Amino acid sequence: MSAEIFKGKIGILGAGALGCFYGGRMSRAGHDVRFLMRRDFEAVNARGLKIVSFEGDFEIYPPVYRHVEELGICDLLMIGLKTTDNASLPELLAASAGPDTLVLTMQNGLGNEEEIGRILTNMKFKNPGERILGGTAFLCSHRDLPGTVYHTAHGWVQLAEFRGAARERTHAIAGLFHSAGIRCEVLDSLAEARWRKLVWNITFNGLGVAVPGGDTSAILGDERLAATARGLMQETIAAARADGVEIEAALIDKMMADTAIMDAYKSSMQIDFENRRPLEVEAILGEPLRRAQRGGIAVPRLEMLYGIVRRADALLRAGEV
Amino acid sequence: MSAEIFKGKIGILGAGALGCFYGGRMSRAGHDVRFLMRRDFEAVNARGLKIVSFEGDFEIYPPVYRHVEELGICDLLMIGLKTTDNASLPELLAASAGPDTLVLTMQNGLGNEEEIGRILTNMKFKNPGERILGGTAFLCSHRDLPGTVYHTAHGWVQLAEFRGAARERTHAIAGLFHSAGIRCEVLDSLAEARWRKLVWNITFNGLGVAVPGGDTSAILGDERLAATARGLMQETIAAARADGVEIEAALIDKMMADTAIMDAYKSSMQIDFENRRPLEVEAILGEPLRRAQRGGIAVPRLEMLYGIVRRADALLRAGEV
Repeated sequence: MSAEIFKGKIGILGAGALGCFYGGRMSRAGHDVRFLMRRDFEAVNARGLKIVSFEGDFEIYPPVYRHVEELGICDLLMIGLKTTDNASLPELLAASAGPDTLVLTMQNGLGNEEEIGRILTNMKFKNPGERILGGTAFLCSHRDLPGTVYHTAHGWVQLAEFRGAARERTHAIAGLFHSAGIRCEVLDSLAEARWRKLVWNITFNGLGVAVPGGDTSAILGDERLAATARGLMQETIAAARADGVEIEAALIDKMMADTAIMDAYKSSMQIDFENRRPLEVEAILGEPLRRAQRGGIAVPRLEMLYGIVRRADALLRAGEV
Repeated sequence: MSAEIFKGKIGILGAGALGCFYGGRMSRAGHDVRFLMRRDFEAVNARGLKIVSFEGDFEIYPPVYRHVEELGICDLLMIGLKTTDNASLPELLAASAGPDTLVLTMQNGLGNEEEIGRILTNMKFKNPGERILGGTAFLCSHRDLPGTVYHTAHGWVQLAEFRGAARERTHAIAGLFHSAGIRCEVLDSLAEARWRKLVWNITFNGLGVAVPGGDTSAILGDERLAATARGLMQETIAAARADGVEIEAALIDKMMADTAIMDAYKSSMQIDFENRRPLEVEAILGEPLRRAQRGGIAVPRLEMLYGIVRRADALLRAGEV
């Protein structure tokens, strides 16, 4: 791509592992990146942000704020919030999004772009859908002590406009990722990127909670659970088709094979469950299920999985598991 | 029924709540009932067996044995073992079943009659299938301290020959139940009795483990889980059809309505799971699944449920949940 590289004030909303990693790389590359932080504010403010990465460790000392009002209006907002924290988005966007701000959500699952669109509409911005982009991150990272993020594998990104095909600015934002050393693929369909990732995420995040000790090897090592995983992938592909996205059936064999070499990998939802953190049940399971059922698609496994995981999440939030 | 009442030496193998309740009622009615006991031997030997029942409490002082050799050959063996203890059946039957012994299994699920048949075949008895009967118990009971059994609701029984229609001896054994104040319905198809009960048992025993805190009200109170329950019942009816048993679809509405008035009822499998006891996963889920798949019937929910519950059982036995 010979496109221009996006320039402007970049605000990171939701500076978890994902937000810190991508924002940190962009910051290191010389971009104007500012972080809104809660848990890690004191540590990063005092001693900087440390990224421990298989691609090379580094430290940065970026502007970091505790309150979104201090962040102010940005040119690009990158949303790394867990979808379970979406209730804080209206307050965050009210203070950081102006009429020309681009909002890029890197969050999991379906429905986040629509939710951001509704918030911007409530803020009386015109055509808010036009200012939203979505990215899917293929990133293995986690946080540990405040101020340190671990990047253990992968890291590439798919990027698309929420409404319509890629345009010049899409490529400019991809250029921003590239300049930070991140592979970034520009797509003409965000829905396709989201649904393709859901083929894996519905299956292994959902079963990671519903199956006791349900890491990938526990699932693939059991004939019935492996058949169930394939069945969930088939249902997701059928649901995607009803939502206007065509996914080749061969993706199932590929994902099963790719997952088999991951050993006993724990999905983010399984890790959240084991650590008693709220589960991203609506973005990853609930919204895809609702779209499938709106489209008249039978998804018996997904319906059952959503029922089980939603119940697990409710008990977890009530402190009962 | 004007049939004769079965007379002879009755041995109870598996004197849990069910075996103690039915055997205890028969003993009180004057029949020759002998109990093989492990956990409760000392208590019952010293102070008798106490049945606390909504139909009237009573105490009996029956012959009770610790070793099956002391029990000796019986005319009728009533099997009340949990199916997870079926590995002990060869040793038990070797000492208590003779060539004329009738074996009545009151156990849950599918496959127990076949297993008993194989054991009797190995004992060189001729036509062993001809000497096996099966019963389904609609009984709410539990044990607490050794020597006491609680009978909290219901108690009736369906009875059928393993091979072929009801005959004189079937009615004679039904007469034995009647004489003990137990309603006993004689059927011409054991498979029908087993599959009809499985419509409920697969659904609410399986979901009782797969759904965290999955009592009946948690399932019926959630739109997706209630739909999943109905779906599991449909799959069970389809599997029964492939196994030669026709069940009317209206049973689903009836069972859902009957279950709705049970409040927050915990299935036996849920109670076993909460108490970290082995689950009857093969009899209630595994064998029905195998029959469905042998018959070419798609049972996606049952396959997923079996995968989840089997894994829960494996971790439980390994002490990991």
